[in-house]
Amino acid sequence: MRTQVVIIGGGPSGLLLGQLLHRQGIEAVVLERKTRDYVLGRIRAGVLETGLVKLMEEAGVAERLHREGFVHDGTEIACDGEMFHVDFRKLTGTPVIVYGQTEVTRDLYDARADAGAQTEFEVDHVVIHDADSDHPYVTFDQNGTARRIDCDFIAGCDGFHGVSRQSIPLSVRREYEKTYPFGWLGVLSETPPVHDELIYANSPRGFALSSMRNAHLSRYYIQCALSDHPEDWTDKAFWQELKRRIPDEIAERLETGPTIEKSIAPLRSFVTEPMRWGRLFLCGDAAHIVPPTGAKGLNTAASDVHYLYHALVQHYRDKDDEGIDRYSERALLRVWKAERFSWWFSGLLHRYPDQSPFDLKMQQADLSFLRDNEAQQRAFAENYVGLPY
Amino acid sequence: MRTQVVIIGGGPSGLLLGQLLHRQGIEAVVLERKTRDYVLGRIRAGVLETGLVKLMEEAGVAERLHREGFVHDGTEIACDGEMFHVDFRKLTGTPVIVYGQTEVTRDLYDARADAGAQTEFEVDHVVIHDADSDHPYVTFDQNGTARRIDCDFIAGCDGFHGVSRQSIPLSVRREYEKTYPFGWLGVLSETPPVHDELIYANSPRGFALSSMRNAHLSRYYIQCALSDHPEDWTDKAFWQELKRRIPDEIAERLETGPTIEKSIAPLRSFVTEPMRWGRLFLCGDAAHIVPPTGAKGLNTAASDVHYLYHALVQHYRDKDDEGIDRYSERALLRVWKAERFSWWFSGLLHRYPDQSPFDLKMQQADLSFLRDNEAQQRAFAENYVGLPY
Repeated sequence: MRTQVVIIGGGPSGLLLGQLLHRQGIEAVVLERKTRDYVLGRIRAGVLETGLVKLMEEAGVAERLHREGFVHDGTEIACDGEMFHVDFRKLTGTPVIVYGQTEVTRDLYDARADAGAQTEFEVDHVVIHDADSDHPYVTFDQNGTARRIDCDFIAGCDGFHGVSRQSIPLSVRREYEKTYPFGWLGVLSETPPVHDELIYANSPRGFALSSMRNAHLSRYYIQCALSDHPEDWTDKAFWQELKRRIPDEIAERLETGPTIEKSIAPLRSFVTEPMRWGRLFLCGDAAHIVPPTGAKGLNTAASDVHYLYHALVQHYRDKDDEGIDRYSERALLRVWKAERFSWWFSGLLHRYPDQSPFDLKMQQADLSFLRDNEAQQRAFAENYVGLPY
Repeated sequence: MRTQVVIIGGGPSGLLLGQLLHRQGIEAVVLERKTRDYVLGRIRAGVLETGLVKLMEEAGVAERLHREGFVHDGTEIACDGEMFHVDFRKLTGTPVIVYGQTEVTRDLYDARADAGAQTEFEVDHVVIHDADSDHPYVTFDQNGTARRIDCDFIAGCDGFHGVSRQSIPLSVRREYEKTYPFGWLGVLSETPPVHDELIYANSPRGFALSSMRNAHLSRYYIQCALSDHPEDWTDKAFWQELKRRIPDEIAERLETGPTIEKSIAPLRSFVTEPMRWGRLFLCGDAAHIVPPTGAKGLNTAASDVHYLYHALVQHYRDKDDEGIDRYSERALLRVWKAERFSWWFSGLLHRYPDQSPFDLKMQQADLSFLRDNEAQQRAFAENYVGLPY
């Protein structure tokens, strides 16, 4: 068979791209290794920048997001038991919307089904062929059958471990990476969130984040050792540790309860360059990973989708390849900004095993400067709500 | 003999404090280990914040500064051959004044002589006694004679290697330090400055700074190995290396010539806490060192002088010790901000031996963000022209 664009990966970036293209009359087939239910079982944070919200609107899938999402006008940052507020709306005119990534994905699957667009689930052994020619194609196995789709373009939206990035020859790939010497232990609990905004906390015992899914579902994270296992952490131990890392006034009103989900994620910064090879385009985690501090993962994937979507429309509608030729450059320009912010914000809030007393003082001074200096707060807020595409 | 305040150290901070106190009718004796000519032979950078300029005005020694100093409304920052401008005046309403530290010191010595204030030169073996009592005194040798001055207060303005800091017992001192894995090779040359503003340059070959003393005297620095010696660097080698680190358009118009002075300085961040012990107060380099990037050394000494001067006036005039009791806290609050800025700005511009490719990308992203983001530029400019006392 043949289509215009093969999208490898049925996560939020692949689905968003597919939906945007569909509405422009560009045909795309999405290939997903797992089932729909598996994809929707992945729990991911969801702090949506305005740019992503606008893309969801353009894709016609923003209705529930606007109905159920929480508009956050700012965030709290805590250090050594004290807390200060950063007012996004006052500083930038823009809030963020807290709406689970899983819900974004669900809305996109529903829209895709309504549109009758083609999604192939449980595909295996995906191989990208001739991406550097004018006639690329993708082969894969599905239910024991070998299949092939010819196409004009391939969007690699298959994440860090996917085949897309690895299909670009090593000779043209440059990869940049930083690993962090700790992980995040995340807990989902059926308790009301302790606060109506996120609280990012730097404490002598390490980082903590108080977040939420909705009015009845809280999401909390604490910095932990990479050698820890979720099962090492009883609920009681988790709540106790969390309380010691957040300001007393917050800890006192924290409602604890049984946890639904508990997992540990490592933190990584990663970028591959270029993000285009011939007719293959990398999008989202396939090309870059940020540490979760500041919630730039999904949002940066969305900025890639924005550039690729416009490049493809320009190609098909205007017969102009300028957007395609400049995709990698444009996407990377914004990717590096998000990488910088996520790296800096991680550095601001975590305790590092090799931090000297001077380094700790610099971290405190950075936090104080953010608390006290309006220009610094504005630079922070502009990053947090999302730099312009 | 007896005086109100003994000031140990006849560098700019001790002299400025002495002059300010003199005009308030508070008697101070300045003790200086070297001769006046020796002190005035030390060549130091001079980028003066408004706060320091105002203190000089208050001390009645700003006339020549305003006549001969260069008002700089901004600075240039270069990276990989490209250059961008930061407009201090537009961003903060305030310029800086380029005026050699040596000239500041000269003006203060002249004013001190005019005022008939007492300065003791070539004093040796200075010892601080009973600083934690109500009756401190200082002993020293001068021309083979042992002398003693009783006083109310002692201002330790005797620099990093002075006795003042070391007179505070180790049991109450906390010291924070960072050394940098490179030095600055500085050159003074009788050539017109290559540009009318400072140019801070990050290049693949390391940092470079184009600065000036006056219209006929240029001051240039390049990052060098700590193991280098000034005599390893011929004038020719220096100019060649400098040209490779600054943008071509600048290098092309660089006038080279014989160098008058050539020296290598290590870079260090250092803070001691507290800055007061009983009736002993540390000021300037005696309490803290910054790397020279951003020129915060003299300016931060001046902010200490500001707090101590007001504390002493409050004590003698208002019989109120609030300023004295809070001196250390207030001075340190601003010191740590200057430390943060100098550390960050050094990190932005130098090449570090252990920088990973990712770290380099973060440095570039930091520079790009500073170039492109107005809020970040404002935060930078506010630091550069001097945060409020």
